[in-house]
Amino acid sequence: MTITLDDARALDARDPLRAHRDRFLIDPDTIYLDGNSLGALPRASRARIAEAVDEQWGRDLIRSWNKHGWLAAPERIGAKIAPLIGARPAEVIVADSTSVNLFKLLGAALAARPGRKIILSEPGNFPTDLYIAQGVADALPGVELRTLAAGAIADAIDEEVAVVLLTHVHYKTGRMLDMAGITRAAHAKGALVLWDLSHSAGAVPVDLNGCDADLAVGCGYKYLNGGPGAPAFLFVAERLQAELNSPLSGWMGHAAPFAFGDDYAAAPGIRRFLCGTPPILAMTALEAGVEEFAGVDRDALFAKSRALTGLFIDLVEARCAGHGFDLVTPRDPALRGSHVSFRHGEAYPICQAMIARGVIGDFRAPDIFRCGFTPLYTGYGDVWRAVDILADIMDTRAWDKDTYRIVLPVT
Amino acid sequence: MTITLDDARALDARDPLRAHRDRFLIDPDTIYLDGNSLGALPRASRARIAEAVDEQWGRDLIRSWNKHGWLAAPERIGAKIAPLIGARPAEVIVADSTSVNLFKLLGAALAARPGRKIILSEPGNFPTDLYIAQGVADALPGVELRTLAAGAIADAIDEEVAVVLLTHVHYKTGRMLDMAGITRAAHAKGALVLWDLSHSAGAVPVDLNGCDADLAVGCGYKYLNGGPGAPAFLFVAERLQAELNSPLSGWMGHAAPFAFGDDYAAAPGIRRFLCGTPPILAMTALEAGVEEFAGVDRDALFAKSRALTGLFIDLVEARCAGHGFDLVTPRDPALRGSHVSFRHGEAYPICQAMIARGVIGDFRAPDIFRCGFTPLYTGYGDVWRAVDILADIMDTRAWDKDTYRIVLPVT
Repeated sequence: MTITLDDARALDARDPLRAHRDRFLIDPDTIYLDGNSLGALPRASRARIAEAVDEQWGRDLIRSWNKHGWLAAPERIGAKIAPLIGARPAEVIVADSTSVNLFKLLGAALAARPGRKIILSEPGNFPTDLYIAQGVADALPGVELRTLAAGAIADAIDEEVAVVLLTHVHYKTGRMLDMAGITRAAHAKGALVLWDLSHSAGAVPVDLNGCDADLAVGCGYKYLNGGPGAPAFLFVAERLQAELNSPLSGWMGHAAPFAFGDDYAAAPGIRRFLCGTPPILAMTALEAGVEEFAGVDRDALFAKSRALTGLFIDLVEARCAGHGFDLVTPRDPALRGSHVSFRHGEAYPICQAMIARGVIGDFRAPDIFRCGFTPLYTGYGDVWRAVDILADIMDTRAWDKDTYRIVLPVT
Repeated sequence: MTITLDDARALDARDPLRAHRDRFLIDPDTIYLDGNSLGALPRASRARIAEAVDEQWGRDLIRSWNKHGWLAAPERIGAKIAPLIGARPAEVIVADSTSVNLFKLLGAALAARPGRKIILSEPGNFPTDLYIAQGVADALPGVELRTLAAGAIADAIDEEVAVVLLTHVHYKTGRMLDMAGITRAAHAKGALVLWDLSHSAGAVPVDLNGCDADLAVGCGYKYLNGGPGAPAFLFVAERLQAELNSPLSGWMGHAAPFAFGDDYAAAPGIRRFLCGTPPILAMTALEAGVEEFAGVDRDALFAKSRALTGLFIDLVEARCAGHGFDLVTPRDPALRGSHVSFRHGEAYPICQAMIARGVIGDFRAPDIFRCGFTPLYTGYGDVWRAVDILADIMDTRAWDKDTYRIVLPVT
C-alpha cells in the first residue's frame, strides 16, 4: 500500500528543510524534476547578479577586481563547495567547465605517473568524460583510454594505469560507485582516481578526504544551483597539489599573474589549476547558488534525497504497475544518487506527455525516463502529484500522440 | 599648438558616433580610459541579463536550451562578432576563455602540421599567450616555444615552424603588427598563424579573410563590452575547419551531443571548437555587448580610434613636456591600436594619482602608464580633461605621495 497525497503533504509539513523551498523561484503550475540537469533559480541570486552588473561592473568597473573580490572568487566559492564534498577549503576551486577541468586533471595525472599510459573508465560514462579522455589520448603519444564495466574496474587496475576516471553517480542510471573501495584499489597499484561529482555534489554524501581521494571535478549548474552553464569546480588533494601541473597553464594559474613575466611559474596551491580570466557574472550566480547550502543540515539533506527517490520508486511501481516501467536505478538507497531512471520503450513520448502536463523530467536516449529530486526544494507532495499524473498518462495512453514524438535537441 | 577644451567639445558635437555614448553607463565624475581592460556596461545589457535570469533560467528552466536559443548562442554570437574582424559568420564561435581557446588552436595547429615542432612567438607577448604555449610545449613531446623580436619573425619562419602565435595589437605598447605580411611569410613556409585579437576586435580594423588568416582568438570583455571575464571567441578559416581538431574534445563540440554515444565525433563546422556547456548568463551579457556595434559605421569607428589616440599623444607631449614621459606606442596611426602607452619611471604613482582624481587608466609593470580609448563611448572632451588632470598632477608633483605607492594587484 502506498501513501496518499495527504500523507505526502504531511511529510512536507514535517520536513526540516521546508523553508528552503521558499528561497527558490518555484512555479506552482510546474513540478520540476530536472534540478539534476539545471537547478532552479534561488530568489536571492537575482539581486546578487543585478548588483554584480550594476554596481560592480557598471559603477566600479576595473576597480572591482580588488574592491569586490573578483580576483579571489575562484577559491572563495571553492571553499564554500568544499564542505559539501568532504574536502578542505584550499582543495577546491571554481573554474571553466567540467569538460575543461577533466582535461586539466587527466593531463596532470598522466604527467605525474610517467611511464603509465592507461586512462581507465567505464563504457557509458557521461559522454564528455569519455570524449575528453579520448582527446587527451589522441594528443599524447601512447596514451590510451580503456573502458571496462564499472564492477570490473577495481580488479583491473594495474601498474599500467595512470588514472581511473569515473562518475560517482551515473548520469543515466543513478547508480553510485564505491568511492572508498575503488580509490583504495587504485592506490594499491600506484594509480590516481579522478571522480566526476556532477550528479553528486549538493545532493548525496561525498567524503573525498575520508576516501583519501586524489582528484575530482563537478558541475555548478545542477544541485549547486549556479545557473545555466555555471562554472564548474575541481578538487586536488592537498598532498598532490605541488606535484601536479595543469597542461592549461593560463595566466590566472601563475604564481604572480600581474607581474606579466614571460615565463610560466605555477601558483603554489590550488590556484595553479585556474587558466583564463574567471567569468564574474557567472561566478556571482554560482556563489549565490552555493550559499543556499549555508546552515543546511547535511544529514537531513541527504536523508531527504533518499526519501524522495525511494518514494518515487515505490509510487511508480505501485501506481504504474503493468505499464512496462523497468527500474534502472539501484533499489538500495545507499547505492543510488538523487535521480531515478526507469526504462520504457516509449520513454520519449511519455516524457513529452509529462512535460505537457507540467511535470519536467527528462529523457535519456534510447529508452530512459529520468527524474531528479533536489532535496533543497523538491517536496514529497511534488513526487506524489508527479506520479499521479504519470499514472493517468499511462492509464489513458495519453502519451501515444504524434505530437509527443517530435524529437527536440534537449539537454 | 594644441586644441582647447572647447575645440574638443566641438569635436564631440560633430562625432557621428556621439549617440552611442549614451547607450553606456558612464559616470560623469569619472573619465574611464580602461575599456581596453574591461569595457563599460551597456545600459541595454542590464535588462537582457535580468531577462535571462528571471524568464529564461527562473521560469522556463531547462526548456530554455531550445526555447531561448541557448544551444545556438555560441555560433549566433560568433556570427555577430565576425563582421568586426573580417570573418564569415560560420568562422567565429564564442567559447571558454582566451587562454583555453589558445590551447585548443595551438594543439590543433601542431597536430595539423605533423613533424613540425616549433611554436614561434615574441618575447613580451601577452603573458597568457606565452604561458599557454609553454604548457602545450611541456605536454607534447618535442614541441618547443621559440621567441624572437616581432620584427624578425617573418624572416625566421622556416619548415620547422608549425604555428606562429602573435598578438595583433600589443597589450603593453599598442603596436599593431602586419597581419597580411606575416601571414604571407608563414604560408610561404607551410606554417599556420594564430592571431590574438584581444586588443583589436571592436576598436581597430581587422580583415582576417582579406589577410588569408588561419586562426585567431580574442577577448569578450574589452572593446566588445561583454562584462568581466566574458567568454572569448575563436576564429578558424572555413578552409581549415575540417582538418583541425580541438584537443579539448568536450561534448558540445560533438557532431551529435545529445545522442550520448561513447565515441567522440567532431561536429562538422566551427562547433567542433566548443568544449563544455556554455555559460549562458555570461553569453547573454556578451551578446548584448556585441550588439552595441549593430548599425555602427565601422570606418567612422576606426577613424575615431585613431583620432582619440592621436589627440592623447599630442596633448600629453604638449602639456606634459619636460616631465619625463616617453611615448612607447607608434606615432603612425596605421601602426597602433586603440590604447596609448607612455614610459615613465614613476608610472605607478602617477597612475594612482590619476585614479584618485577620477581618471582610470592603468599601469603595466615595470614603467608603463597606459590609457585605452573606446571609440564607441570615449569622447574628445574626455581625452582633453584627462590630460589636463595629468598635466596638473605632473606640474604640482601630486603623484609624489606615499599613498600612491601602495601596490595593489590590479589587472
